[in-house]
Amino acid sequence: MQLPKRVHIMEVGPRDGFQAEHEWIPTEKKIEILNALSRTGIPEIQATSFVHPKAVPQLADAEQVMMGIERQPGVRYQVLVPNMRGLQRAIPCKPDGVHLMMSVSESHNRSNANRSIEDSFREFERMVPVAMEAGIRVEAGMAVVFGCPFEGEIPRAQLEGIISRYHELGIRRMSLGDTVGVANPRQTYDLCSWLLDRYPDVEFTLHLHNTRGMALANVVAAMQAGMTCFDGAIGGLGGCPYAPGATGNVSTEDLVYMIQEMGIETGIDIDKLLAVSRMLQQVIPHNLDTALLKAGKRTDLKPAPKEQEKIG
Amino acid sequence: MQLPKRVHIMEVGPRDGFQAEHEWIPTEKKIEILNALSRTGIPEIQATSFVHPKAVPQLADAEQVMMGIERQPGVRYQVLVPNMRGLQRAIPCKPDGVHLMMSVSESHNRSNANRSIEDSFREFERMVPVAMEAGIRVEAGMAVVFGCPFEGEIPRAQLEGIISRYHELGIRRMSLGDTVGVANPRQTYDLCSWLLDRYPDVEFTLHLHNTRGMALANVVAAMQAGMTCFDGAIGGLGGCPYAPGATGNVSTEDLVYMIQEMGIETGIDIDKLLAVSRMLQQVIPHNLDTALLKAGKRTDLKPAPKEQEKIG
Repeated sequence: MQLPKRVHIMEVGPRDGFQAEHEWIPTEKKIEILNALSRTGIPEIQATSFVHPKAVPQLADAEQVMMGIERQPGVRYQVLVPNMRGLQRAIPCKPDGVHLMMSVSESHNRSNANRSIEDSFREFERMVPVAMEAGIRVEAGMAVVFGCPFEGEIPRAQLEGIISRYHELGIRRMSLGDTVGVANPRQTYDLCSWLLDRYPDVEFTLHLHNTRGMALANVVAAMQAGMTCFDGAIGGLGGCPYAPGATGNVSTEDLVYMIQEMGIETGIDIDKLLAVSRMLQQVIPHNLDTALLKAGKRTDLKPAPKEQEKIG
Repeated sequence: MQLPKRVHIMEVGPRDGFQAEHEWIPTEKKIEILNALSRTGIPEIQATSFVHPKAVPQLADAEQVMMGIERQPGVRYQVLVPNMRGLQRAIPCKPDGVHLMMSVSESHNRSNANRSIEDSFREFERMVPVAMEAGIRVEAGMAVVFGCPFEGEIPRAQLEGIISRYHELGIRRMSLGDTVGVANPRQTYDLCSWLLDRYPDVEFTLHLHNTRGMALANVVAAMQAGMTCFDGAIGGLGGCPYAPGATGNVSTEDLVYMIQEMGIETGIDIDKLLAVSRMLQQVIPHNLDTALLKAGKRTDLKPAPKEQEKIG
C-alpha cells in the first residue's frame, strides 16, 4: 500500500460546521473552541465565513471571532469570503488566507451562491487583486465535485474549466468538495490521480462529507493517489443548507485517528482533540457525529470480566 | 487501484444482529426478514445461532426460524453452533454450513464462550466428525483478530496457532472478526495479504464492525489485498454483549452500495435490499445504523430550487 508519511489536516468545523447549526453559539464559545483547537497541534483552521449575516446568521460574529481568538504560532487561520463585501470585512482581521467558493454545477452554484458560475468568476476577478494588495493569499474551493444533488455526475471538462479559471486568477491551492457525500473510493482515486498529474503546480485538498459512510474509505483511496491534504470538522459537524440530504463533514477526530493508526503523521495530539470534542458536545444541542468520541481509542483497554456461570 | 471484479457478501444480521437486540423479535418477523433478504440476490445468510436459550434468549427460536423460512435456490444458509448441543439441534434443520466461533485472545474467549481456547478446540474436535457425518460443511470464525478489548493487539503467532488448529480439523473457510472495530486500513491490508499468501487453500471472510467508522475503509484495503468475501448486517445491527464498547456490524446496505458504486459486482439488488432495510426499521425499536437508508442513493436526484431572493 503506497501511502504518504505525513498529511496536512485543515479543521473546517468553525466555518462549515457552525454555519449548519440552527441554535446560536455564543461568540465566546466559538472563540473558546477555536482556541482549544489551535492548541491540539492542528496546522490550519478555517475559522469563519464573512458571509452576509442574513444568509448565515450563525456567522454574523465573524469579526468578533477573528479579533477575539488567540493566534497560536504555527497555526494558519483561513476564512471564507463569498464576495467583495466579505473580503473587505475580512481584510482588517488579517487572516492568513481567504477562501473563495464555487459549485462546479450551475444549478448548485445558483442554489448555494445565488448566482451563475460566470457571475461568481466576475466577482472573484475583482476580489483577487484586492486580496493580493492586502498581502493575503487567495485559495479556492469547489463544491459538488463528485456529484451534484440536482444534476448528478459532473463532466470532467466542466471541472477542468473551473480549475483553469481559478488557475488563471493565480490560485494554486484548491479544495475538492464532495458536498453531498456521493464519492466512492475508486472514483476518488481516479479523479485525484488525474488532477494531481494534470495540475502539478496546484495543491489540492479533499473536503469530504460522510453522508453515505464512505468518507474514510475515500481518504484512504485519495492518499494512495498521492493526496496529502484533507479537511475535517470536529464532531462531524456540518451539512449544507442548500444541498438536500447533505450531512456532516467527516469528523476530524475519526479522520485523524484513522490516519495516525495507519502510521501516518498529522502532528495532532488525538487526546487534546478528543478533549475539544467533549467541550464541543457541551455547546452543541445534538449528538456529535463522531465514532471515536463514543468508542474511545483502541488502546483504552477494558478489564476482563470474571468467569460467568456456565450455561448449557 | 487493484480491485476484484466480484465479491461475495454474507448477510449476518439475522444472527449477529438479532442476538444483540434486547426486545424480542417475533419469530414470524424474523422469518419475514430472512425471506425478504433471500430475494435480494444475496448469495449467503447466517440465519441464526443454535446457542443455549439462556445465553441468548433472542435466538431461542432457531429451529422454528430454520424450519419456517422459504429456502431460496442459490442462497446458502449457514448457522452458528457454539457447541455439540447446538450442532445436534442444528443438524435436523439441514443448514448448508455450520459456523464454529472462537476468540483469538484467551480473555475474550473466556468472556464470550465461557471457556478457554483449549476447551473450545476440544469441543470442536468432537463436533467436526459429527457435522461431517451429517454431510454439513464446517466453517469457522475468529473474534477479536485485529485487537481485543482486554488484551489489546494479538500476536500473529497466536492467530497462526488458531488457524493451524482449525486447518488440522479440515476447515478451509474462516472468518476474521474485527469484533470491537479497531482495525485500520493499513493493518487490514497487511494482515489480509499475509494470510492470503500463507494459507492459499483457505477461503477467508472479513467480518467488520464499524465502531470507529473505519469499516468501509478496511473493506477497500482488504479488496486491494485480494479479499473477496465480506460479512455485513442489514441495518448495521449488532454489537457484542461480551465486548464492551462494541457497536454494530458494517451495514450490508452501505457495504453493498460502496462496492457496487466502485463497479464491483455483488449480484445484489440494492433497491430490494433497501426495501428490506425499511421493513426491518418497522420491527427494530431503535434507529438503524445505515447511512444509505437515510441518505438514499447518489442517483436519487432532487429538483433544483428556484432562485432565491438576492442577499447582500
